[in-house]
Amino acid sequence: MLVNGKKFTTIWFDKKNECVKIIDQRLLPHELKIIDLNELNDVLYAIKEMQVRGAPLIGVSAAYGMFLAAKNDTSIEYLIESGDKLIETRPTAVNLSWAVNKIINKIKDLDESNRKETILNIANNIREEDIQVCSKIGDNGLKIIKEIYNKKKSTINILTHCNAGWLATVDWGTALSPIFKAKINNIPIHVWVDETRPRNQGFSLTAWELINENISNSLIVDNVGGYLMQQQKVDLCITGTDRLASNGDVCNKIGTYLKALAAYDNKIPFYVSAPISSIDFNILNGIQDIPIEERSGEEVSHIEGLDEKNMITKVKIVPDGATCVNYAFDVTPAKYITKLITEKGIIDANSSSINKIKN
Amino acid sequence: MLVNGKKFTTIWFDKKNECVKIIDQRLLPHELKIIDLNELNDVLYAIKEMQVRGAPLIGVSAAYGMFLAAKNDTSIEYLIESGDKLIETRPTAVNLSWAVNKIINKIKDLDESNRKETILNIANNIREEDIQVCSKIGDNGLKIIKEIYNKKKSTINILTHCNAGWLATVDWGTALSPIFKAKINNIPIHVWVDETRPRNQGFSLTAWELINENISNSLIVDNVGGYLMQQQKVDLCITGTDRLASNGDVCNKIGTYLKALAAYDNKIPFYVSAPISSIDFNILNGIQDIPIEERSGEEVSHIEGLDEKNMITKVKIVPDGATCVNYAFDVTPAKYITKLITEKGIIDANSSSINKIKN
Repeated sequence: MLVNGKKFTTIWFDKKNECVKIIDQRLLPHELKIIDLNELNDVLYAIKEMQVRGAPLIGVSAAYGMFLAAKNDTSIEYLIESGDKLIETRPTAVNLSWAVNKIINKIKDLDESNRKETILNIANNIREEDIQVCSKIGDNGLKIIKEIYNKKKSTINILTHCNAGWLATVDWGTALSPIFKAKINNIPIHVWVDETRPRNQGFSLTAWELINENISNSLIVDNVGGYLMQQQKVDLCITGTDRLASNGDVCNKIGTYLKALAAYDNKIPFYVSAPISSIDFNILNGIQDIPIEERSGEEVSHIEGLDEKNMITKVKIVPDGATCVNYAFDVTPAKYITKLITEKGIIDANSSSINKIKN
Repeated sequence: MLVNGKKFTTIWFDKKNECVKIIDQRLLPHELKIIDLNELNDVLYAIKEMQVRGAPLIGVSAAYGMFLAAKNDTSIEYLIESGDKLIETRPTAVNLSWAVNKIINKIKDLDESNRKETILNIANNIREEDIQVCSKIGDNGLKIIKEIYNKKKSTINILTHCNAGWLATVDWGTALSPIFKAKINNIPIHVWVDETRPRNQGFSLTAWELINENISNSLIVDNVGGYLMQQQKVDLCITGTDRLASNGDVCNKIGTYLKALAAYDNKIPFYVSAPISSIDFNILNGIQDIPIEERSGEEVSHIEGLDEKNMITKVKIVPDGATCVNYAFDVTPAKYITKLITEKGIIDANSSSINKIKN
């Protein structure tokens, strides 16, 4: 999508230098910096430190990580070990193991000399597929927005939490894809952007995407959504998901559950954009079985922004002696999800519908 | 309550200098600064700029503001005008008009020469009453905590939102008063402290109070409470209220409603500590009729903390061109409130119970 009027994606292969290029998302919205990933360790660092983030994007990154590993050593032992390291970088999203396992399965019986090129082809395909999948999710979500617009005939207010925009994928995004498509189709849209503490991906990434695409939006702290819904200032909610259980329970950025409860209480539809790669068919009950990542308390106690001199500065916002606890995700029970928007269509958040679209 | 082991209240009259002393709460938790209020304008500024905040405390501050006004001019016209200015400083809490009207009613038929002293006596009484009221709320809330503790027999986890501690009142607080009393009674307590964006009163004030009183606590962003409740890591919630409608609807800091929904969904009791001065008997339906203050977007787009050099620094956390919207309160429907904790006892959040305790 657009950054200052120029088309970008989040990750691409640089043939000439045999390296992978990414946007370092930690510096957004204040600075757009493209960096090179030259070896496996660069990818491990990029995922762990969240230079790249978003379930689909870290899946694509892991695939390229396997290629960078294969540049070093194409033995199956080394590749499996590398894949394990990639899977361990983040515990919640299923896309990491999805991408790694796809590659291992395809190359394990190949002649060693063909592995490197094959992995690159698979990674490029995963990247290309991600773009197509997100575009289709956008087309399907657009149908929902159109339907609401045809009734309301005025600006559609959409609330989203965290960033499931193009920065979380390769292009288009998941939750934001229907919004970008609505813009292209001239449907008037206004987006309520949740801050998404503690890492503020809503303010830093989602708002930045929408501003760059010239889509009307307002930034709100995470506490506001319930009030807006009570006041009928929200027509629908759309979020992404980091891991969707096969029973329809949605694991997503911490706080999603609270917004789903408010939507339910106010009879506002709550949609989740979910590429099939985000579905963990092995997890039968999301609330019981999805492991929730606990991250460093420093993400809670400190916050980064631009100071008066336009320098990126980190400040401490808690008293001396404070103990901060940082759960990164929560699980929204399927009963609060109106529908799932997938690349294969709009489906119910329950086992039978989800199992029908299994690849 | 205690600050670095020394007993403090938030506001007191300095006889010798005929001025009012307050803690400038904007500098907490990083600096404890006591300032003098010498005239009406100082009080208007203190309330508007939130040097003092919290519904009960701004009520007491307004009462002293009337005294400082009377130092200047004791005509009824001037005092009514001063009262109107005080009421207009913040639109949501009912305590401002409660304190001002109480004073106007008492002095309007008095000889002008007696007014100044009478107002000071009323203000001192309102202050003293506030301490007593909060202490009684603590005693009543303690009964609830004791009951839960007698069943659970291990640490009681309490979630609170915003600051309804002693800093929001003169002493003891409302929501935190039962917690301070539980500490005195040796009941093991752990408090989950919501950050409370955008002004972060949870991190800056509630956590600071609890750390100073040596009560175990963990700081969490506003998104986390729902997850904790799903995981049964919360035994009860207690919040304060800025304005309680006579039907039991609770207006409180933005985000309270979301926590009440999560508590309801997980069958966790949700209590609201409410001094009778917070009840607006004229408001029959809280959701429809309580005006919600909309504050400056800069509270959302910028955040203050300590930089690496321990200097209080403000940083901007949104992209260029961002539009921030800042609703300060929401209204939680009475059906989600388990009970109200008042100085006259623990009562149901409905019209008949509330009207019974009318002064």
